[in-house]
Amino acid sequence: MKESLDFIYKQQKELSTLGGIGALLGWDQMTYMPPKGAMERSEQSALISKLSHEKVISDNFWNHVQTLSNPDIFSNISNKDKSVVKRLEKDLEKARKIPSDFVERMSKTTTLAYQSWEDARKKNDFKVFSPSLEKIINLEKEYADYISLPGPKYNSLLDDYEEGMTVDKLRQEFSYLKSNLIDLLNNIKSTKTYEGQENLNVRFDESTQRNLCKMVVEKMLLTQESSRLDVSTHPFTTTMGNDDVRITTSFERPSPLFSFFSTIHEAGHGLYEQGMPRDEFKDTVISDSPSLGLHESQSRFWENQIARSKAFWNYFYPVFKDNASQQFSNIDFDAWFREINLVKPSLIRVEADELTYCLHVILRFEIEADLMDDKIGVNELPDVWNSKMNEMLGVTPQSDVEGVLQDMHWSGGSFGYFPTYAIGTIYASQLFNKLIEQNNNVFNEIERAEFGNILNWLRENIHRHGRLMTADEIIKNTCGEGLNSRIFVNYLKDKYYVLYDV
Amino acid sequence: MKESLDFIYKQQKELSTLGGIGALLGWDQMTYMPPKGAMERSEQSALISKLSHEKVISDNFWNHVQTLSNPDIFSNISNKDKSVVKRLEKDLEKARKIPSDFVERMSKTTTLAYQSWEDARKKNDFKVFSPSLEKIINLEKEYADYISLPGPKYNSLLDDYEEGMTVDKLRQEFSYLKSNLIDLLNNIKSTKTYEGQENLNVRFDESTQRNLCKMVVEKMLLTQESSRLDVSTHPFTTTMGNDDVRITTSFERPSPLFSFFSTIHEAGHGLYEQGMPRDEFKDTVISDSPSLGLHESQSRFWENQIARSKAFWNYFYPVFKDNASQQFSNIDFDAWFREINLVKPSLIRVEADELTYCLHVILRFEIEADLMDDKIGVNELPDVWNSKMNEMLGVTPQSDVEGVLQDMHWSGGSFGYFPTYAIGTIYASQLFNKLIEQNNNVFNEIERAEFGNILNWLRENIHRHGRLMTADEIIKNTCGEGLNSRIFVNYLKDKYYVLYDV
Repeated sequence: MKESLDFIYKQQKELSTLGGIGALLGWDQMTYMPPKGAMERSEQSALISKLSHEKVISDNFWNHVQTLSNPDIFSNISNKDKSVVKRLEKDLEKARKIPSDFVERMSKTTTLAYQSWEDARKKNDFKVFSPSLEKIINLEKEYADYISLPGPKYNSLLDDYEEGMTVDKLRQEFSYLKSNLIDLLNNIKSTKTYEGQENLNVRFDESTQRNLCKMVVEKMLLTQESSRLDVSTHPFTTTMGNDDVRITTSFERPSPLFSFFSTIHEAGHGLYEQGMPRDEFKDTVISDSPSLGLHESQSRFWENQIARSKAFWNYFYPVFKDNASQQFSNIDFDAWFREINLVKPSLIRVEADELTYCLHVILRFEIEADLMDDKIGVNELPDVWNSKMNEMLGVTPQSDVEGVLQDMHWSGGSFGYFPTYAIGTIYASQLFNKLIEQNNNVFNEIERAEFGNILNWLRENIHRHGRLMTADEIIKNTCGEGLNSRIFVNYLKDKYYVLYDV
Repeated sequence: MKESLDFIYKQQKELSTLGGIGALLGWDQMTYMPPKGAMERSEQSALISKLSHEKVISDNFWNHVQTLSNPDIFSNISNKDKSVVKRLEKDLEKARKIPSDFVERMSKTTTLAYQSWEDARKKNDFKVFSPSLEKIINLEKEYADYISLPGPKYNSLLDDYEEGMTVDKLRQEFSYLKSNLIDLLNNIKSTKTYEGQENLNVRFDESTQRNLCKMVVEKMLLTQESSRLDVSTHPFTTTMGNDDVRITTSFERPSPLFSFFSTIHEAGHGLYEQGMPRDEFKDTVISDSPSLGLHESQSRFWENQIARSKAFWNYFYPVFKDNASQQFSNIDFDAWFREINLVKPSLIRVEADELTYCLHVILRFEIEADLMDDKIGVNELPDVWNSKMNEMLGVTPQSDVEGVLQDMHWSGGSFGYFPTYAIGTIYASQLFNKLIEQNNNVFNEIERAEFGNILNWLRENIHRHGRLMTADEIIKNTCGEGLNSRIFVNYLKDKYYVLYDV
């Protein structure tokens, strides 16, 4: 028993260390690596992945976990050990279902598919990408067969990102959300305010954008001692260790809003990473997020509920004004707050506003589910995409790049990932609703950019649990119910009906 | 045979990949890592070291190399394979002499010793460091016993940094160099020019310093596509791959000279790294430098022979002037060239001028040799240091920090490392002398900052050989003789007797 416990903790520790190394290799590739370093970097990353994978599926590891799961022994280990062993058994059982040759085939196929996706984007032609996508979809189906959860194949893919989530549950949730969002959008579009709205053309130079981003990150208590903010083409968060979390943004756009909100979003992820269980569960399988949806709830919470609120801009509007007083000479608080919350159906998901964002996600979910069920074929994708865009958002892509080619996810074989963006957005609303029920001083705190209590509430209710529970259990525990779009829809109605005089 | 060849190349490839990963972990630690990331980083670096070490000393590896070394088989493999097998056999035989428990003891002792060295520096008290140093010296002796080359123990340490180098050879070489440098220095010190000299007080802001450094690196043809220049407390060069070499400098000093010359120095190392054999010998034990002395020759060559020459400043003096014209209003070319080559005996090695630098190194060599021979004890070090400083340089440290505590090398167990700084400096002079013999246009090229031919000459004569020969063989091959200070001394005389009107 002692030997098995020692082994499994040592193994988890090494996996955690390899994870941090892999994170650094990836971070550097996206931020500082000279372009010609790419080839050798891919070999370095592949080696770390291989070493990790070998550890995860090693028979030794599995046998020790099985020894500890034996009821006679299991009843004699500590509660902590029980949690770790139960979680490990599930994870390893799943990982061991996948043959090594499949992992290799998937890795090679996605590497080539990413190149053909980039190529297709350059040529603005989906047909350049479709043969690769076809292969990936077949591999996804093969993967689903290995995992073989009950119900449609897509269930086995969703489970990787959101444990326990099913197509049925999502269809139900998303059908309610979709019809409500479309109604909301149509009501807004019929207002005079919407008719007369236009983007303000505020431009901040890179160094001003950077200063504002650094400031908001410090205010959010993601400190410089244990984190960094750097630049990459697409913003992301990555973790080398509890005390080394790195977020990125991009200052390429002249408006400060992209860098500012993406920084807040990534800082939300970063705070969650730093809040993972550290003491007894450090370097175990428990010290991680139970789902990408819950992870996304932490970024959305800060980006939407906090940073798109009136209270937040009571503090930050003067700060922005101080940094570019000339440009703000004829932009009063209300005009700026409307700019922050402009509803404007658009073609590109990553640039969507708070209200229409989830429609982009639901569109992708519907397509993925139908692809997995063979209800649509790869060659139909551009048409299906465009007609769904038109149906949900009332806009139609004029090219594949603006439409079906916009996300890299499919080229990487990440089917089942997209729904977590909406799940996180819904969770964030549920969490914020509970927070203001429990602390009626929240908006005063936000107005002063004092986020300590809010962060502690998240630490207490979400972060500290790691993977001791599923995302669903954590949300039920905190909010009294699982995933439910009702609160999110009401939040949007309350906010946008006022903004648009509906 | 086929199986053994496949195995040894795969093993070397993985070692090379692990080497690149370890380099990134170290680079990031010194440049961008948030301070609190240190603990987890040390675990990440230790894991990569452990994985590499296990590969190097694995019996499997050794057995395959032995199989290939068997004369019947050896005679049937290609010349390339022969070179690799011969080199590997030497390397592995040496590595396998060291017990794993020793590696662990050394690693633990140096980690603690580094802390006590830092602590001693803070307290400006050698006695805080001496117990750790005592332990390290004992471990160095134990190491020497495992390697057990003929002659004094110190031979077995020198060999790690400069294969084939011995205490006897160095004593002879350094005794000639030392007496000549002291004579030279005394002659200079007795001139009126020396008496009246003072430092110019030129100050460049960080961004000007950075621009000048980036410019000189590009001129040296270390391009942005395959390298980076970043900032760290102590400048260094590290290599993630043939096409990903990173150098650092520091802009903390107000004068631009430290950052400019240290950048050129590190870029010289970087060019060597990029010039290593790539084609058939890529990712083999051959694609590396045969010695630290030869590596240092490449940095010194650019730093001293090129960048401290009149020709070089014909190009760069106007560039510097353009960047700070006010400060240069009363500094003409001659005054600036004297500033670049100011001889000024000082206490700190890393700030020493070209002429006195090697005296700092010889001092350390003499001390290390005597420590290994038990001719002096650790507690005598501060006194021995100070009296040697006085004897060689005519200056006396007023504190341990200015004296015996100034270098981190001993705390890391790097006995035998220091001499390579002087060896490289001497080699650099020999190489430059041969270059100007073979290309009488060199100074014209330097005057135009056109370094392509010079770099090609280094690529052809030094870089492309990797470890196919020892450093001594490579130098003999190119210069017609091995290590010889005569040319270096003459170079110094020619240059400094003019500058100081001796």
